[in-house]
Amino acid sequence: MTDGGEGRRVLLTNVGELVTNDPGADRDGGPLGIVRDAAVAIEDGRVAWVGPAPDAPVDDDVEVVDLGGRAVIPGFVDSHTHLVFGGDRAEEFSARMSGRAYEAGGIRSTVGATRAATDDELRARLAAFVAELHRQGTTTFEVKTGYGLSVHDEARLARLAAEVTDEVTFLGAHVVPFEYREPDGPGADAYVDLVVGEMLEACAPHSRWVDAFCERGAFTEAQSRRVLEAGRAAGLGVRVHGNQLGEGPGVRLAVELGAASVDHCTYLSDEDVAALAGSETVATLLPGVEFSTRQPYPDTRRLIDAGVTVALASDCNPGSSFTSSMPFCIAVAVRDMGMTPAEAVWASTAGGALALRRSDVGALRPGMRADLAVLDAPSSIHLAYRPGVPIVAQTWKDGRRVA
Amino acid sequence: MTDGGEGRRVLLTNVGELVTNDPGADRDGGPLGIVRDAAVAIEDGRVAWVGPAPDAPVDDDVEVVDLGGRAVIPGFVDSHTHLVFGGDRAEEFSARMSGRAYEAGGIRSTVGATRAATDDELRARLAAFVAELHRQGTTTFEVKTGYGLSVHDEARLARLAAEVTDEVTFLGAHVVPFEYREPDGPGADAYVDLVVGEMLEACAPHSRWVDAFCERGAFTEAQSRRVLEAGRAAGLGVRVHGNQLGEGPGVRLAVELGAASVDHCTYLSDEDVAALAGSETVATLLPGVEFSTRQPYPDTRRLIDAGVTVALASDCNPGSSFTSSMPFCIAVAVRDMGMTPAEAVWASTAGGALALRRSDVGALRPGMRADLAVLDAPSSIHLAYRPGVPIVAQTWKDGRRVA
Repeated sequence: MTDGGEGRRVLLTNVGELVTNDPGADRDGGPLGIVRDAAVAIEDGRVAWVGPAPDAPVDDDVEVVDLGGRAVIPGFVDSHTHLVFGGDRAEEFSARMSGRAYEAGGIRSTVGATRAATDDELRARLAAFVAELHRQGTTTFEVKTGYGLSVHDEARLARLAAEVTDEVTFLGAHVVPFEYREPDGPGADAYVDLVVGEMLEACAPHSRWVDAFCERGAFTEAQSRRVLEAGRAAGLGVRVHGNQLGEGPGVRLAVELGAASVDHCTYLSDEDVAALAGSETVATLLPGVEFSTRQPYPDTRRLIDAGVTVALASDCNPGSSFTSSMPFCIAVAVRDMGMTPAEAVWASTAGGALALRRSDVGALRPGMRADLAVLDAPSSIHLAYRPGVPIVAQTWKDGRRVA
Repeated sequence: MTDGGEGRRVLLTNVGELVTNDPGADRDGGPLGIVRDAAVAIEDGRVAWVGPAPDAPVDDDVEVVDLGGRAVIPGFVDSHTHLVFGGDRAEEFSARMSGRAYEAGGIRSTVGATRAATDDELRARLAAFVAELHRQGTTTFEVKTGYGLSVHDEARLARLAAEVTDEVTFLGAHVVPFEYREPDGPGADAYVDLVVGEMLEACAPHSRWVDAFCERGAFTEAQSRRVLEAGRAAGLGVRVHGNQLGEGPGVRLAVELGAASVDHCTYLSDEDVAALAGSETVATLLPGVEFSTRQPYPDTRRLIDAGVTVALASDCNPGSSFTSSMPFCIAVAVRDMGMTPAEAVWASTAGGALALRRSDVGALRPGMRADLAVLDAPSSIHLAYRPGVPIVAQTWKDGRRVA
C-alpha cells in the first residue's frame, strides 16, 4: 500500500494509456485527453504533473510505481446513489423479473427497515458500500437521504452519509410516506410542510444538496418547487429527479432553478432537450435503472448531439437499480444508449464532476485531486468491451491506494 | 489461504444460503436445492457432507471457516470460451459500437496475432484469464482452439489450453482461413480435408471435444458433419456452434450426432426446439454475444418450457463477447432472455456441467468436487440483482481457495 499524502511524492509510470479528460493533452484532440506511455506525478495528494513517461520529473525522493502498461483513468464520480438504507429486497426483485406478484415490497419496505435499523447497522452497511465503490474505481460519490421520511430519520441518514462523503443530498421529498398517504392521513401537502420546515432544518447542516422526486406518484411540480426553493434558501444546491416514467415538468423546473443536475431524463420533449442545451444543468442518466426495471433506455445521442452535458451515475438503491458499478453503467450506456465508449468514460468521470459542480475531481491535470483507477487493460475502451469483468486493478484517492 | 486437499478437512459454516443444485435438499423442492443456515464439509478436495449448520460433523481435526451468513453456490462451469489468442481488438469494438467502419479487424486479425505470438506470450495471457475466471467464481472452464487454423498452430493452441483445463475443444473448423479463401486459394473443402486429417491427428491428443461452426459464412452442414464425425471417430466428444445468425442445420446436426451441447441457439425453428427437447443435447446460450453485438436475445422461456436443458456460458473471445463474467451473463439472461434468477444460476452451474457431460462439478453434494463460490451477499439472487458488481468474495476449487 503506497501512501501519497502528507508531503509524500509518487510517480505512477509506464501507464499505457492515460485518460486525463484534459482536451489539450490529447494529440488527437478528443475529449478524453489521452496521453500514451504516460506518467502521473503526485504530491500532497494532488496531481503535480502529467505527460509522456520519458519526460517525467524524477528524483531520489520520489516513489516510482510501474503500472506495466495498464490504462489509468480519473476515478469515477458517481453523482447519484441512495446508499443509506436497511433491509433486503432480493425476493421482490426476483419476483418482478420472473413476472410473479409480490405484495410486501416497494419503497415502503425499505423505509420500514431503515427506520428499524440502528446507526451502527446503517454505518456498517455504508462502510461495505464504500469499500465496494473503491474496489470498482469510484472515488467520489453522492449519497441521498430519502428512506427515513421523518425528521428524526432523515436527519440520522444525512448525518451518517456525511460520515463517508461531502456530497450528501437531502431527499426528504423522495416519496410521501405511508402514514401521510393513508385515507385519513394528513396528505402530501402536509408532508411537504414538514419537509420544508423542521426536516430541512434538521438535515441542512449535514447536506450540500436538496433534491425532489418530481414525478407522477411522487411530488407535483408545485410541491417539488416548494422543496427545492426552501432548500436553496437554506444554502443547499439544487438537484432534481425527473422525467423517469414519462414526460413531465422535472427538467423544466431543474433548469429554471439552476439545478446542478436533473437525473433520469428517460422521457424528454424537444423543449426539454433545448432547455438543457441552453443551461448549466447536467442531464444525469442512470442505465442501471432501465436495466433493472426493463424500461426503455434514454437516447443519449439526441442529448449529446444537441449539446447537452451528460453524466452517468449508478442510482445504487435496493429497489430500481442495485448496481454500484460504474463500469457496468458504461457498458450498458454504450450498448443501449447510443454512447461511444469515450463518451461514456467521460460522462462517468468529468460528467459526474460537473453534475456535482466539482472542479477538483473528474480529470487528471495538475492541481486536481490524485483520484484515479488503474485498469487491468491497455485502454479505457475495455470498460465497455469487457462487460461485467472486474478490470479495476487499483484505486487511488487523494494520492493513496484505497483498493 | 486454506488448503483443503490432501487429507485436509475443512468445514465451511454459517452459510446463509447454500445452493446445492440437489433438488432433494430443498425444502421448497426448487431446482437449486437451497439449504439455509448451512454448512459444507470438505475432505480430500471433495464435498463430504452438506446440511443445516447445527447438524454439521465437527471434531478437532476440522478447520472451521465461518462465512458470516454469506451465500455459497457451486463454482460456475463455463462450457464455452476461446481464451487462447493474441492481439487486441478494442479499437474494432469501439468502432462497431460507435457506428464507424473499421477495416483491419475481424477474426483474421486475431488469427494473425495468435500465429505471431510465442508460446510464452499465449501462456501468460491464459494464466491471466484463469486468474480472472477464478476471481469471478468460475472453477471449470472449456477452452477452444480456432485462432491457429494451421496444423502447427491449432496443435499449439490445444497443447497450451490443455495446460490449464481438461476441457479442450478442437475447433479447427472455426472459420476457413484467409489463405484458403483467396480467389486462387484451395477453398473450403480443401481446408476441411486438412482439418479432418493432419490437423485432427495433431490436436486430438490434447483435446476432449471436437466442435464446428455450422453457419452461413463458416461451414456448411456437410462440411461440419465431416469434421464432427471425424472427431468422434478419433474419440472426441461432439459440440456444435449453430443457429447464431439465423435458422440453420446446426441444432439438427448436433442432436443427430449426439452432441453434448449446441451453442448459441439464437434462432430456432419449432422443429429445432422439439429436437432438443427429445435429446441429451444441451442448448448453451451465450448472452455476452448478443449484448456485445446488439443482436436479438434468444428466448430461453420457449426452451425451458419445452423441456430443453439450458446452459449459460460466456463465449469469452476478443471479437463478439469479451466478457468472462458468469455473473454478468446471469444478469443479462434474467433481464433479456426471460430466465428467472434461479434458472440462470442453475444454467451457469449444473447446466454448464451437463453441457460438458461432467458429473463431478456443478452441484454440491457428497462426492462432488469441492468447487464453490462464496458471495458477498445473502442469496444467489444478488447475482442478477447487483449487475456488474463483483460480489464473488472467495472461490474454492478442489477444496482449496484459489481466489
